[in-house]
Amino acid sequence: MTSVDLNADMGESFGPWVMGQDEDLLDVITSANIACGFHAGDWDVMAGTMKLAVETGTGIGAHPGYPDLQGFGRRRMQLPADSLRNLVAYQLGAARAMAQAAGGKVRHLKLHGALANTCAEDAALAQAAYEGALSVDPDIIVMVLAETAQQRAVEALGCRWAGEIFADRAYNDDATLVDRSQPGAVIHEPEVAARRMVEMVQAGAIITESGKHIPAATDTICLHGDGRTALLIARAVRDALTGAGVTLEAFEGRTGRL
Amino acid sequence: MTSVDLNADMGESFGPWVMGQDEDLLDVITSANIACGFHAGDWDVMAGTMKLAVETGTGIGAHPGYPDLQGFGRRRMQLPADSLRNLVAYQLGAARAMAQAAGGKVRHLKLHGALANTCAEDAALAQAAYEGALSVDPDIIVMVLAETAQQRAVEALGCRWAGEIFADRAYNDDATLVDRSQPGAVIHEPEVAARRMVEMVQAGAIITESGKHIPAATDTICLHGDGRTALLIARAVRDALTGAGVTLEAFEGRTGRL
Amino acid sequence: MTSVDLNADMGESFGPWVMGQDEDLLDVITSANIACGFHAGDWDVMAGTMKLAVETGTGIGAHPGYPDLQGFGRRRMQLPADSLRNLVAYQLGAARAMAQAAGGKVRHLKLHGALANTCAEDAALAQAAYEGALSVDPDIIVMVLAETAQQRAVEALGCRWAGEIFADRAYNDDATLVDRSQPGAVIHEPEVAARRMVEMVQAGAIITESGKHIPAATDTICLHGDGRTALLIARAVRDALTGAGVTLEAFEGRTGRL
Amino acid sequence: MTSVDLNADMGESFGPWVMGQDEDLLDVITSANIACGFHAGDWDVMAGTMKLAVETGTGIGAHPGYPDLQGFGRRRMQLPADSLRNLVAYQLGAARAMAQAAGGKVRHLKLHGALANTCAEDAALAQAAYEGALSVDPDIIVMVLAETAQQRAVEALGCRWAGEIFADRAYNDDATLVDRSQPGAVIHEPEVAARRMVEMVQAGAIITESGKHIPAATDTICLHGDGRTALLIARAVRDALTGAGVTLEAFEGRTGRL
Repeated sequence: MTSVDLNADMGESFGPWVMGQDEDLLDVITSANIACGFHAGDWDVMAGTMKLAVETGTGIGAHPGYPDLQGFGRRRMQLPADSLRNLVAYQLGAARAMAQAAGGKVRHLKLHGALANTCAEDAALAQAAYEGALSVDPDIIVMVLAETAQQRAVEALGCRWAGEIFADRAYNDDATLVDRSQPGAVIHEPEVAARRMVEMVQAGAIITESGKHIPAATDTICLHGDGRTALLIARAVRDALTGAGVTLEAFEGRTGRL
Repeated sequence: MTSVDLNADMGESFGPWVMGQDEDLLDVITSANIACGFHAGDWDVMAGTMKLAVETGTGIGAHPGYPDLQGFGRRRMQLPADSLRNLVAYQLGAARAMAQAAGGKVRHLKLHGALANTCAEDAALAQAAYEGALSVDPDIIVMVLAETAQQRAVEALGCRWAGEIFADRAYNDDATLVDRSQPGAVIHEPEVAARRMVEMVQAGAIITESGKHIPAATDTICLHGDGRTALLIARAVRDALTGAGVTLEAFEGRTGRL
Repeated sequence: MTSVDLNADMGESFGPWVMGQDEDLLDVITSANIACGFHAGDWDVMAGTMKLAVETGTGIGAHPGYPDLQGFGRRRMQLPADSLRNLVAYQLGAARAMAQAAGGKVRHLKLHGALANTCAEDAALAQAAYEGALSVDPDIIVMVLAETAQQRAVEALGCRWAGEIFADRAYNDDATLVDRSQPGAVIHEPEVAARRMVEMVQAGAIITESGKHIPAATDTICLHGDGRTALLIARAVRDALTGAGVTLEAFEGRTGRL
Repeated sequence: MTSVDLNADMGESFGPWVMGQDEDLLDVITSANIACGFHAGDWDVMAGTMKLAVETGTGIGAHPGYPDLQGFGRRRMQLPADSLRNLVAYQLGAARAMAQAAGGKVRHLKLHGALANTCAEDAALAQAAYEGALSVDPDIIVMVLAETAQQRAVEALGCRWAGEIFADRAYNDDATLVDRSQPGAVIHEPEVAARRMVEMVQAGAIITESGKHIPAATDTICLHGDGRTALLIARAVRDALTGAGVTLEAFEGRTGRL
């Protein structure tokens, strides 16, 4: 029986500033990636978000990013590997504490924004970042962008991991994302996104724009909670998967090479 | 057989800026209060400090403060109790992660600067801060300023705690510190500080300027690592205590009212 | 002929987080208090807000606050007078640069949040803060909460100033605001706020809950741009004033004691 | 008659953390590049540093950097051109205010650290950064690394500028710096540094490792104030230049292409 996880970023408010539609999203997803105070979130926002996640039984993830609130962690910063290791360990520790204070537990880790992009290109930096997490919790499940340097890093580390595909992005034949400047790169129609996700999950493969099937770890689907159509897509994907008999549940993680 | 702990703040560098004489201090103390990145320290500084503490077998403490690097956590900030609870949980979580990544474990918690002063006056705020820590680690030993509102808070909470006295500050007859504006408030002579500490530890009491004995939890002595005479005082206190047959070791903590 | 200024805080977004309805407010107000990056705003937000203010011919004010983004400058911080002086000078300088880059000029200064509250109670701290501003621009118009320690400070300094009254807050007979915990402290009905403002501006006085008239510098009215009813109140106040023949224009400031 | 300026970075302390030997350096240099609070410095440090510079008659420069205290502005951050423009305008404004409050005036601008390196490679980004400064003060003198993209940017902008050479770094034949990994890249001997500077200033050229002369705007020499030998080099350079009859004075800037 096929199953898949639905994940989204949460807890991205900061101080007086509200972002996202966390409560609505929690009805849809099975895993939440919770900001750790460096690119978004703060100790109070985290406390509230962890409580919501615990109450709804959602899988809790730490979502570390670069130390860059103004840039929302979307600007690349040149941090050496050692500092990345410490940066991720620090943020995971904070997230573990806030989860525990809310009666929950951090199950997974997903890198944010420019940090994620850097580590999707550079397996050595990805490995450093993940080592930081594993030094704090050797059992943590590392969520990686399927078929990127992130995946090569977890395969090399031998840790638990889960592969992630995008609901709203088209793929090239080498499993990279179609550049946003290209037509069709971003999928806006909920029913198109939904149909693609059912196909990919059932095939256990990334299906590219040209129709090519690339066998992949389709363990979790990345959804969004901001913007007008994000929730519509999220709900359509969920409905289509359940309609197709796919079980929705937080991933348990896998080990080893795909 | 009498024993006592010697503690000092550490890991107070930040980015390119160095503060303190951590390596020298580690030869003297038995417990280190390590800054958690809010008033001092950062993820890289913490990683290095934790490593030093583990290598020297020093008891590791989290040392949370207000989110105020420029003010070094010495300026009072009006944070509500709920936010204090989250603030302390967050910082303790980060410290636990950095300790674990270095092969160690956070054993105790000590509040820093203006946060400590506020909580020495207001038991409700102290209790909120300590609840934040206990929600993350119910076994943590809370280091309190002996005979202050901090102590009333841990007695009310029923958690493990250790009482702290100052090597270099004179006490009033109500167990408060003599105001720094008064002559004799701060003790600068190593041998005077050392003699007082031996007397207080052996008596299990705070001995005030007037000579009054106030029975107190003299579990740990606060030493400093900055300034010209700080290390001299630290070493003199250590030598005098060992010379008097007092065992120096990290505290195990006590529970209940004094 | 009676005239009055309408002011509101603006530019309170930060990085990816949007706050306020600045464009709508600019149709209503004659002076904008623009956040300077310490409690809200950042260099990019400031650039955009200054541009809007210049395009609409709105009077530009610097709106410095405590260095506390997470607390939005609403938490009191214990800064000594010298540091307040520097803090305000720094933020005013940044605002002047951003205004000039947009083709405008900072005309006034208004303190934000907890910094404003502290200075409404403590004339010495208010004086330090305003000295910081005057050391950068001796011609700046200091906006003060009428009949508070802020006003006493500008009277003592002999600088240009303008007095401010609130559209949506009730006053006690000593010209202080009715505490928010009391019924009627905050005015929610647009027509009530509007009627009061016409009365106060025409009387040149604060009119208290009991009906007492306290002669005051009613140079500018504080409006808000957040929350559901804020814009409704702002527009009602504007309409009622123009309907009553009051001219709406940015203040020129006054000097000397009231 | 030949003249040259000697410049160094100053005001790089932050909060409780002290860096540099500013008072000693002020006896040597004729222009100071003062940190603006983003990579170092804060409003209080700036106030003190501006006061020192005014008292010693040193030319005052704003020294903006990336918003990165922990990394001391030495880590590259991917900021778009528009944001760079605003970032520099903001910091220059703050510096101008602090200078004016101290009775002085900002005469020049020099980019710091990774921001300087980026702009030495990318003339478009350099131009954006300098436009930010010129939008605040069209008369400011922009200090550029001689023969880099920084210089091409000021030539294109037509603004006042001054060219800078390094006392302690060897040059390649294309006027770039010899990489620090190469032997001889950094000059540690005060007398060697001093002799080179006299030669380059008298020749009006960068003299490379191979002895090649590249005509260059040798308007100012970059000195350092941290590290053991920095002050020794600074003093040796100063003494050698005066001994050779070169006048030491703050630059007036030049315009146009070299």
